Amino acid sequence: MHFASDNTGPVHPNVMDALLRANAGYASPYAADALSAELTAQVREVFEAPEAVVHLVATGTAANSLLLASHATPWQTIFCSRCAHIQEDELNAPEFFTGGAKLTLVTTEDGKMTPAGLRAAIEGEETRDLHGPMRGPVSLTQATEKGTVYSLEELRTLTGIAQEFGLKVHMDGARFANALIALGCTPAEATWKSGIDMLSFGGTKNGLMGVEAAILFDPAKSREFELRRKRGAHLFSKHRFLAAQMHAYLEGGLWLEIATSANAACQRLADGLRAAPGANLMYRPEANIVFARLPRATHRHLFAAGAEYHLWDATLDGGPEDEPLAARFVTDWSASDADTDRFLALL
Amino acid sequence: MHFASDNTGPVHPNVMDALLRANAGYASPYAADALSAELTAQVREVFEAPEAVVHLVATGTAANSLLLASHATPWQTIFCSRCAHIQEDELNAPEFFTGGAKLTLVTTEDGKMTPAGLRAAIEGEETRDLHGPMRGPVSLTQATEKGTVYSLEELRTLTGIAQEFGLKVHMDGARFANALIALGCTPAEATWKSGIDMLSFGGTKNGLMGVEAAILFDPAKSREFELRRKRGAHLFSKHRFLAAQMHAYLEGGLWLEIATSANAACQRLADGLRAAPGANLMYRPEANIVFARLPRATHRHLFAAGAEYHLWDATLDGGPEDEPLAARFVTDWSASDADTDRFLALL
Amino acid sequence: MHFASDNTGPVHPNVMDALLRANAGYASPYAADALSAELTAQVREVFEAPEAVVHLVATGTAANSLLLASHATPWQTIFCSRCAHIQEDELNAPEFFTGGAKLTLVTTEDGKMTPAGLRAAIEGEETRDLHGPMRGPVSLTQATEKGTVYSLEELRTLTGIAQEFGLKVHMDGARFANALIALGCTPAEATWKSGIDMLSFGGTKNGLMGVEAAILFDPAKSREFELRRKRGAHLFSKHRFLAAQMHAYLEGGLWLEIATSANAACQRLADGLRAAPGANLMYRPEANIVFARLPRATHRHLFAAGAEYHLWDATLDGGPEDEPLAARFVTDWSASDADTDRFLALL
Amino acid sequence: MHFASDNTGPVHPNVMDALLRANAGYASPYAADALSAELTAQVREVFEAPEAVVHLVATGTAANSLLLASHATPWQTIFCSRCAHIQEDELNAPEFFTGGAKLTLVTTEDGKMTPAGLRAAIEGEETRDLHGPMRGPVSLTQATEKGTVYSLEELRTLTGIAQEFGLKVHMDGARFANALIALGCTPAEATWKSGIDMLSFGGTKNGLMGVEAAILFDPAKSREFELRRKRGAHLFSKHRFLAAQMHAYLEGGLWLEIATSANAACQRLADGLRAAPGANLMYRPEANIVFARLPRATHRHLFAAGAEYHLWDATLDGGPEDEPLAARFVTDWSASDADTDRFLALL
Repeated sequence: MHFASDNTGPVHPNVMDALLRANAGYASPYAADALSAELTAQVREVFEAPEAVVHLVATGTAANSLLLASHATPWQTIFCSRCAHIQEDELNAPEFFTGGAKLTLVTTEDGKMTPAGLRAAIEGEETRDLHGPMRGPVSLTQATEKGTVYSLEELRTLTGIAQEFGLKVHMDGARFANALIALGCTPAEATWKSGIDMLSFGGTKNGLMGVEAAILFDPAKSREFELRRKRGAHLFSKHRFLAAQMHAYLEGGLWLEIATSANAACQRLADGLRAAPGANLMYRPEANIVFARLPRATHRHLFAAGAEYHLWDATLDGGPEDEPLAARFVTDWSASDADTDRFLALL
Repeated sequence: MHFASDNTGPVHPNVMDALLRANAGYASPYAADALSAELTAQVREVFEAPEAVVHLVATGTAANSLLLASHATPWQTIFCSRCAHIQEDELNAPEFFTGGAKLTLVTTEDGKMTPAGLRAAIEGEETRDLHGPMRGPVSLTQATEKGTVYSLEELRTLTGIAQEFGLKVHMDGARFANALIALGCTPAEATWKSGIDMLSFGGTKNGLMGVEAAILFDPAKSREFELRRKRGAHLFSKHRFLAAQMHAYLEGGLWLEIATSANAACQRLADGLRAAPGANLMYRPEANIVFARLPRATHRHLFAAGAEYHLWDATLDGGPEDEPLAARFVTDWSASDADTDRFLALL
Repeated sequence: MHFASDNTGPVHPNVMDALLRANAGYASPYAADALSAELTAQVREVFEAPEAVVHLVATGTAANSLLLASHATPWQTIFCSRCAHIQEDELNAPEFFTGGAKLTLVTTEDGKMTPAGLRAAIEGEETRDLHGPMRGPVSLTQATEKGTVYSLEELRTLTGIAQEFGLKVHMDGARFANALIALGCTPAEATWKSGIDMLSFGGTKNGLMGVEAAILFDPAKSREFELRRKRGAHLFSKHRFLAAQMHAYLEGGLWLEIATSANAACQRLADGLRAAPGANLMYRPEANIVFARLPRATHRHLFAAGAEYHLWDATLDGGPEDEPLAARFVTDWSASDADTDRFLALL
Repeated sequence: MHFASDNTGPVHPNVMDALLRANAGYASPYAADALSAELTAQVREVFEAPEAVVHLVATGTAANSLLLASHATPWQTIFCSRCAHIQEDELNAPEFFTGGAKLTLVTTEDGKMTPAGLRAAIEGEETRDLHGPMRGPVSLTQATEKGTVYSLEELRTLTGIAQEFGLKVHMDGARFANALIALGCTPAEATWKSGIDMLSFGGTKNGLMGVEAAILFDPAKSREFELRRKRGAHLFSKHRFLAAQMHAYLEGGLWLEIATSANAACQRLADGLRAAPGANLMYRPEANIVFARLPRATHRHLFAAGAEYHLWDATLDGGPEDEPLAARFVTDWSASDADTDRFLALL
């Protein structure tokens, strides 16, 4: 009953095998190895993007921060959701890597930036010559932190607004695979064909040990990204072990298979929660996250039975037993039906 | 009819005289001159604060940024109003000087942070171990950017909340003199006796050529401030000319006299605006700023006659003539009754 | 014949096994797992340092930069060798992480800072009040980039000078294991008993996939290190896989066994080079690096036969065939006697 | 007998008059005033540079740091003399403003970078792909910190080397006027006609209260400079008072007149020192600085009589009376012959 996060589960066995294979013999360091080169071709094919470049890092925060820093000046402001990972969960890493750019928070509904909110936020900046911050890139999260997914139409509306103002668009795709399964479209349609200029392509939350791919559909800032990666201490000498993971991830569509499984587990869980007495889903669970309110007493019961998940903006102690408390449940590729059913039975 | 800003008017003649006097002979550079030493004693007396230290800089942004950077780590967030100068008018200078701290915007009414808003903002941060930003200092603006003034009780409520969480409080006092006149209390009461730990004590908007005093009521970070000032290229070799201005400003209460005059001009202007047909004041004008909505046609008439002031979040062209458009009027020490009356006559 | 670097070889099989074992089941993220906790105990025992704290990162540059940034202010200067990795090989990462501290280069002989050089460098700074940089930590590299090793006496002399001035001492121990084998002393003797305050304890160049341990013998800045690590995007969600590597590395003294093997391979290589016609060793090879000058023609011959190593400050083309060109040879744990002998036979 | 620095003397009366004149009436803030506009035309004429842009700041460190930061990335290294102000006297301001660029010290003789030293320094960087710092701008000081002056031929040799590598050249001209008098050429010849791309054009050390002009002969980075100036808190609201000083400085060649006077005083002083028993000049005094070694006893005698100057890398107490101790003497525009003669008489 491991629903705390999609970073608590095991690495997929195919990925471990790839690491073992990559360990045979010698390889040039710093991304000069054969696998790293092959990866570029693989990513271009998967994304139907023959000009794209891909650079690997080990954490999602590194992918986000380095991509944003490569496309924002320190006197700009980055537009993001109030609940964006870059705002809430990265301890000012974007500010650090950009050299002090600001983040402007955009009105958000169900985890998604609203078009009116984005337009108002952009129009609200750069209105007083050089006194206030200049407008910088827009950063969207797909799937969102609330487990919802922007439709292609929603994406195109938002990126269209950014383009009106000449702003680049970044997608934080820590759970991009889960979103893609929900959308049922191609990787290209979900990204550059919908106006995305750069993507933090997540792997760690979807079965890898620790690799994220920064994909630049427009390669203009590729060299700058590489310089910033090195300066940020994020260039690995034994880079082949990052490449091996990402290679195995894409090979034969493993990433999609994993995400399909995680999303299915989430649907099973959400269906059970919907049916449970006193439970209310908070957002539409479209990827591998479901938020629900359950009575305090129910949480006590579940925790006591060993269920693992996070209360959200709430604490277990100190209130009435029937008070509904929000909680987040995340499913990963390794979630078994049996495990989910055990949890639902407890409910 | 110069109501564009309190930075467009002349330097007070006493201050010019002081500069001329300071120009006689030789003086040690870098604040090692006699006037600079004397200034410390003077500030301590004015603020009844025998431990306070004072460091001069030439711009308000420098005072704010250096004070905040000396009291915030790069992984903290600074709590301020949505309309604070540090948020809207300093092109990310606080982010630059702190090395990438964040600003958390607090709900604001009539330019003033609300207690509930401040508490909610503070409680909303530092809730997820080291993933989100740590809580940093609170920064209040007095008088506010809307021309209102925090009462001592309001101040104490806000600083009390900060203290509950162990947070330091900074006051951006670019218009501190104007606020003090409105409050009718002592400088000590308006600052450290009300829980203020550090003050950007404005001079430039109140008759100086370009000097602000950073006052640290708790001198613990004084040396760090000095190091940051030098590193930020804000330590003047011919520092005596900063000291001379600030010295003349405090001498014989000139600063209060100037602010009294500016506030009175503002009242005269506000009274006239209140009486004007189609005019609506937007906030209570307690210092030297008044915001009012006037019909577009009236603005056209005023501008054509040579009046100088800023429309606020509005543009002159392209709407109905009777549409009310917001504008900001600022009075400085040099505003004459005749000038104000001429403006009011035009109305 | 892989002598290009100790980052081109395979991960030790014990480490791969540990990764596979760590992959069983679920674990808390962000260093809250059981292995990470156990690691602290293990490091304290190995270093006889019951107060020490250890934080893992994935690159040596991250370990160096985060340790230095946690112990230096932006207005200080860090004292290091002219050939230090932090000076020559980290693309200004120390400057980035410290927020702009300077590096003062100390006179170096055979890769080692000289005591007179260190004293002169320290005395040369902080001589003009706050105009020049303040004195910050000293950073030593052990084993050095030239393959030499500071004796304990040499270490104590240098750390003694730093202590005279109240400066902390950092050791860049990317090849600490190799140095320790050469010294034949305990880890404690080679570090805190010799005045080292913090250690970048290398693993990646000695058989790991990508883990370095930042060890703080004085834990005062431990929390700051953790905050800086997170902000620098260097905190891994699946941290157990870093812990597993480092745990296996220390377990049963594997790290020392590996380093012994690498050093022995280096001696074998060095002996062969010494005997080769026209070859001259440049420094005393005490760890796993040997620098030698060989005639251009010899280099051509070796490269043509598939030998892998780096020319140093020299290029193969464009000079006389008998011109001696410097080269660096590095041996890692996987270097076999047969391989080395094949290389020497070519000579 | 004020020879401590050229920042201890009075502001030239013409400049004080200009400040008084600028104080009449109202003016737009933030460099939008009439004087600021006029200044651009004036600078273009003086430098015969119709494309040049000029931005004013109040300190030399600000001019240097903002110019360098506008032309260097954080992963580059700036080439400068070991004794450059940006290296020794700005408390890491260049590192701060550039976001962590490095400074590479070039071999220097008599305060001047040597051509061989510059070439070696440039060739020594950017040799290992993206591991070491990239090559950034070259920064020369004219007149040098030792009181010497680069000839036009020397300048052209150095800027020619920079151009070979595609590097921009900055001139720290805190004492540019003094150098120009020594050279006897036009401002254009001394700068862009000799390969200088940007100039920190000093005023403060030559009779102004506190203004330096950053002149960009190539205006490509002008907007970036303005943004950095604002973000660095160096944009003055009452900017007209900076413009007034610089305007008066250039008007009718006042700046050259002042510098001529300062240089003449320096020659008078140097001639006297050459003739004094036991005195040795250390460098050729070509501008307004002279370094000399005098016996300790002589220094005692001079200080006792009220002479003001700095010992250089030496302390008065604790050695033999006849030991020669280095000292720096600086003359400013206000130095009178009588004063100098009084000093020489003491000798």
